[in-house]
Amino acid sequence: MSSKVKVAIIGSTGYGGVELIRLLASHPNAEVTSVVSSSSAGSSIAEGYPHLTDIRADTLDGVDAAAIRAKADVVFTATPAGVAAKLAPELLEKGLNVIDLSGDYRLRSAEVYREWYKKEPADARYLAEAVYGLAEIYGDRVRGARLISNPGCYPTATLLGLLPAVAEGYIDPATIIIDAKSGVSGAGRGASLGTHYSELNENFKAYKVNKHQHIPEIEQVLSDTAGRPVVTTFTTHLVPMTRGIMSTMYATVREGLKTADFIELYRRYYEGRRFVRVRPEGVLPATKEVWGSNYCDIGFAVDERTGRVTIVSVIDNLVKGAAGQAIQNLNLSMGWDETLGLNFIPAYP
Amino acid sequence: MSSKVKVAIIGSTGYGGVELIRLLASHPNAEVTSVVSSSSAGSSIAEGYPHLTDIRADTLDGVDAAAIRAKADVVFTATPAGVAAKLAPELLEKGLNVIDLSGDYRLRSAEVYREWYKKEPADARYLAEAVYGLAEIYGDRVRGARLISNPGCYPTATLLGLLPAVAEGYIDPATIIIDAKSGVSGAGRGASLGTHYSELNENFKAYKVNKHQHIPEIEQVLSDTAGRPVVTTFTTHLVPMTRGIMSTMYATVREGLKTADFIELYRRYYEGRRFVRVRPEGVLPATKEVWGSNYCDIGFAVDERTGRVTIVSVIDNLVKGAAGQAIQNLNLSMGWDETLGLNFIPAYP
Amino acid sequence: MSSKVKVAIIGSTGYGGVELIRLLASHPNAEVTSVVSSSSAGSSIAEGYPHLTDIRADTLDGVDAAAIRAKADVVFTATPAGVAAKLAPELLEKGLNVIDLSGDYRLRSAEVYREWYKKEPADARYLAEAVYGLAEIYGDRVRGARLISNPGCYPTATLLGLLPAVAEGYIDPATIIIDAKSGVSGAGRGASLGTHYSELNENFKAYKVNKHQHIPEIEQVLSDTAGRPVVTTFTTHLVPMTRGIMSTMYATVREGLKTADFIELYRRYYEGRRFVRVRPEGVLPATKEVWGSNYCDIGFAVDERTGRVTIVSVIDNLVKGAAGQAIQNLNLSMGWDETLGLNFIPAYP
Amino acid sequence: MSSKVKVAIIGSTGYGGVELIRLLASHPNAEVTSVVSSSSAGSSIAEGYPHLTDIRADTLDGVDAAAIRAKADVVFTATPAGVAAKLAPELLEKGLNVIDLSGDYRLRSAEVYREWYKKEPADARYLAEAVYGLAEIYGDRVRGARLISNPGCYPTATLLGLLPAVAEGYIDPATIIIDAKSGVSGAGRGASLGTHYSELNENFKAYKVNKHQHIPEIEQVLSDTAGRPVVTTFTTHLVPMTRGIMSTMYATVREGLKTADFIELYRRYYEGRRFVRVRPEGVLPATKEVWGSNYCDIGFAVDERTGRVTIVSVIDNLVKGAAGQAIQNLNLSMGWDETLGLNFIPAYP
Repeated sequence: MSSKVKVAIIGSTGYGGVELIRLLASHPNAEVTSVVSSSSAGSSIAEGYPHLTDIRADTLDGVDAAAIRAKADVVFTATPAGVAAKLAPELLEKGLNVIDLSGDYRLRSAEVYREWYKKEPADARYLAEAVYGLAEIYGDRVRGARLISNPGCYPTATLLGLLPAVAEGYIDPATIIIDAKSGVSGAGRGASLGTHYSELNENFKAYKVNKHQHIPEIEQVLSDTAGRPVVTTFTTHLVPMTRGIMSTMYATVREGLKTADFIELYRRYYEGRRFVRVRPEGVLPATKEVWGSNYCDIGFAVDERTGRVTIVSVIDNLVKGAAGQAIQNLNLSMGWDETLGLNFIPAYP
Repeated sequence: MSSKVKVAIIGSTGYGGVELIRLLASHPNAEVTSVVSSSSAGSSIAEGYPHLTDIRADTLDGVDAAAIRAKADVVFTATPAGVAAKLAPELLEKGLNVIDLSGDYRLRSAEVYREWYKKEPADARYLAEAVYGLAEIYGDRVRGARLISNPGCYPTATLLGLLPAVAEGYIDPATIIIDAKSGVSGAGRGASLGTHYSELNENFKAYKVNKHQHIPEIEQVLSDTAGRPVVTTFTTHLVPMTRGIMSTMYATVREGLKTADFIELYRRYYEGRRFVRVRPEGVLPATKEVWGSNYCDIGFAVDERTGRVTIVSVIDNLVKGAAGQAIQNLNLSMGWDETLGLNFIPAYP
Repeated sequence: MSSKVKVAIIGSTGYGGVELIRLLASHPNAEVTSVVSSSSAGSSIAEGYPHLTDIRADTLDGVDAAAIRAKADVVFTATPAGVAAKLAPELLEKGLNVIDLSGDYRLRSAEVYREWYKKEPADARYLAEAVYGLAEIYGDRVRGARLISNPGCYPTATLLGLLPAVAEGYIDPATIIIDAKSGVSGAGRGASLGTHYSELNENFKAYKVNKHQHIPEIEQVLSDTAGRPVVTTFTTHLVPMTRGIMSTMYATVREGLKTADFIELYRRYYEGRRFVRVRPEGVLPATKEVWGSNYCDIGFAVDERTGRVTIVSVIDNLVKGAAGQAIQNLNLSMGWDETLGLNFIPAYP
Repeated sequence: MSSKVKVAIIGSTGYGGVELIRLLASHPNAEVTSVVSSSSAGSSIAEGYPHLTDIRADTLDGVDAAAIRAKADVVFTATPAGVAAKLAPELLEKGLNVIDLSGDYRLRSAEVYREWYKKEPADARYLAEAVYGLAEIYGDRVRGARLISNPGCYPTATLLGLLPAVAEGYIDPATIIIDAKSGVSGAGRGASLGTHYSELNENFKAYKVNKHQHIPEIEQVLSDTAGRPVVTTFTTHLVPMTRGIMSTMYATVREGLKTADFIELYRRYYEGRRFVRVRPEGVLPATKEVWGSNYCDIGFAVDERTGRVTIVSVIDNLVKGAAGQAIQNLNLSMGWDETLGLNFIPAYP
């Protein structure tokens, strides 16, 4: 009936899943034909998400690779850690392309995955095949890929903010310290004391210091870029807000470099890539300035007193940090303009 | 260059103005060709609103009817009370169509306007000409109108929630009590103790009790619908959130009517109107379920113990309560599908 | 060792329980000698509540009436519905006085309790003995009582706002409509989708419309006061904040009465009662103005257009709506000044 | 009439001023006898702060040193930058002791003050006399002091978190990076776009990067402690909450040191000082755990992979970061127990 690419979403009742539904609704070349949930199969999606009333009439499908293949060409797996490790191969074998939003295919080393995720890693063959879809950096590799691993939210904000400077030797990779902050939606929809309103409202807290599973992902890419092993200090905090990530990053700069040099480098590096915006000197981005959109905004302040640069990078964790970049990867893998379906303005205020 | 309708926005630096810019960016038949601001003319819009960086490069135009006419066919006036009263006639005379988001053309009586707004009313001729654009109710009158008065945020949520029941005699208009709550963005971007973060966060407060300028607007429409004068109790509260309005409304029901009767009536009444969604029995809408969208969601609970109905109606005050409905009115006035450019899913969570 | 009254708290790991600990810490005549928890017995209280680090070194006791009696003279039961129904008699038999913060002893009728709470009611003998501790109204009855039933949070704000007007015939009880709003802490510390940060932040929602278990409690007292059965419309909403309740109440006033008459009546009615503060004409209280304190602040607006009064009453749900009033009841039952240990200023901002 | 020390507060209508009023209300040895405001003299304090209704009946006094001296023995100056520079000498000459909450007496160098505050510095004689009241570190010097300079909010959290490690050579001062976050109340009650609810809610932003006036204050103390000049990277962020500061601090540790070593050092260093609480290994403090109280809570995580320690230090910016520490300094200057009037439990949740 339609010539659009048919898309299934596994994990449709999570925040990443419903964000995919929201964004894909205005995609010109793709349409959601199956929403899948292991936990809620058989019930209506609008029951659990009343904002979808009269918009999506779907009944949630169960997780059945053959049935999904009958309905879709591409599948987004927005599943908890450890699920896609087993599921993606089965989907690929049925002929589906897979874009995985979980962390199961981000680390090349099965051993490192096991250490940080405390789960059984995916088969080495698929780890080797998976393309890491940090769109502005590895977009070329994504084209035509069958299995794309969508980057984590923190790594997206962090790496887009660091990579040009590391690649060009503007900063010393050994000195990188990353102080990251996230809204609560990054923790998912699961109910726990850690996501309880009264515990988080009017509160600011650090968590998983030096233990976050995004650390090896960040270090893997930094090491690739630097051409030598990089370890970093990475601290995550929870902000009393729903959406938004800020990575505030510190590093020692190559002598003589000023704020303007960083701005010039990053503008050049990201030229033609619509979703990275570099702020002018004296201005740093705030998370609300990208709310609901696929932008990653970056600003800089070099301090001559200390010889360090402060780099501030912000994204919406559910869009550029999850569903939005996944769609960007769909676009790139299909050879389409990467901005298809993603050309909307941040909701402000 | 383009065959789209050219649109100017006066008051582009207010929240209503930037929301028009956000929504119109994806409108297939209209484009913003001039962003106008009396206070910030000459500066870049992205300077005051960094979320528009690399999206809108506009320099803000001054308020000059002839210059606006040279750039645009239709103008939205998102101006403070009292401004459009003087400005709209001038714009109309230049041949522009005007959709006014302020309250200057909502009340038919100049005297009532003066009493509640404490401002000089518009010329009676224009008050008579203006069409009150409560889209789902008066959409027919909007078609072809030159001067459309966009309803207030509270009246939109309130009237859509009450009118079918009043029109059909399901409730006694003399018993209507409206307890309304709004997010802070309804107060605009002006800085004051009343919009100060530390004063509003973790706080819930009532304001302008029995004195809000939306009271005569609501009563005018209720009276028209009931066919006799209606006065109401209307209380407004400030909620510690940015967007969203809920009107919780109470009235005595015609004997024997049950919740299901209200649901059935409203579904019939709003049939074919995409932006009103009626919740099933036992479910009431929350403001987040319409966040960022043009929906008005309504739910009901008839209490047989008291013979009263509780009607809950929610909107996003900046969309259905301002910019979104204004675009819906543009669509209706042009004879287009009313949903053009407004077909997006609420951002959740 | 100390001549202070020894106090045990059952349900110490709930929000009501820790608030009792906070407030009693500065009580001159009472001291907490046992903190009891069925779910966490044996663990340290500071483990679950790090804000108590180095302040309370207690290990949580299990629920054992004899052991509690060995440590304490009075016990506060801050337990889920249905628990105190069984537990309080046992504690009373051991010679402990009981102040129950749950709803188990508020309704005189076992049948009504069963209907609204869906739990097994307490024994009729104890229901008859329990004194309803709405302190400013029934303070006299509390003195010397062995079993005190501490009022619910909504009933406290609502009844203190309504009773003088009902008692004096200033309003028609048949016309009372109560639109109540609460911060999230009222829902307790249990983790669920209904207390999830991302679901509640930037959201305003109604819940349990016409079904809240505080309805029969409110109606019982209103009926007693009016001298005839009163039924009311009572709607509850959740506000994106942690603490605070506002009841906005509507009723038809006796002809001729003005705002000033209500203010005068209430000031007279509550004379000498420190914890009720009546706002002057033109001013309505906000929840933050009582945050963390035992105050109930009340304001009025009579509308001559409609013949109705709007009464706004605010409390901190965890203090005047729970732990604070419970301590006030301890004071009253002991014949002490009711303000002992409660004389602190609201935390603002 | 009373033998309490009489206290005046200049700047009573700011958040620091009203917090002093709140805290001093329960002080056993001091009482507020004059509340002073240059902007609101002659009006009632409860008018601008309705939470003080029926608690403080004061009319605000004007700024008149002789009149203040007639009422008080000690004066807290909670004034904007530049005011106390001129005012304090006059107050001292009248025989008042002064505890200054502004930054006017924190920097020993007039030149550095001028550079960072862009204001005229205080007279060098008074800069030399002023004692920097970081209570747990310089408490001894405060005793008997006539002019006490109360530390800034960020420096308090930061220095208490860093000084033991610097003093003992546990970290290399040249590597210190401070990533600080504050609730909005730190910006005061002045209305501006920067304190506007709709701009800050659901937003996280960096500000004054490398330019905050607390930088030289922090570096002055670090340099004193290290015995050589220390420069630091110091970044400040605004959190969508009212109260609370977290300083997340990074530094390279002396080889071989582990988390447990830091904990042991800090517990020893702060032994007997009630208001510093050190968290056990694996636990980091959150801002809500000190809300409304005078505590500074500190936690540590040494990362052997990077050889760096992450130190997390939290305070309530209005209490330990302003009014609370000022009272602690009053206590110390009088030779009283430093905890007088400050022995309350954080309000949680």
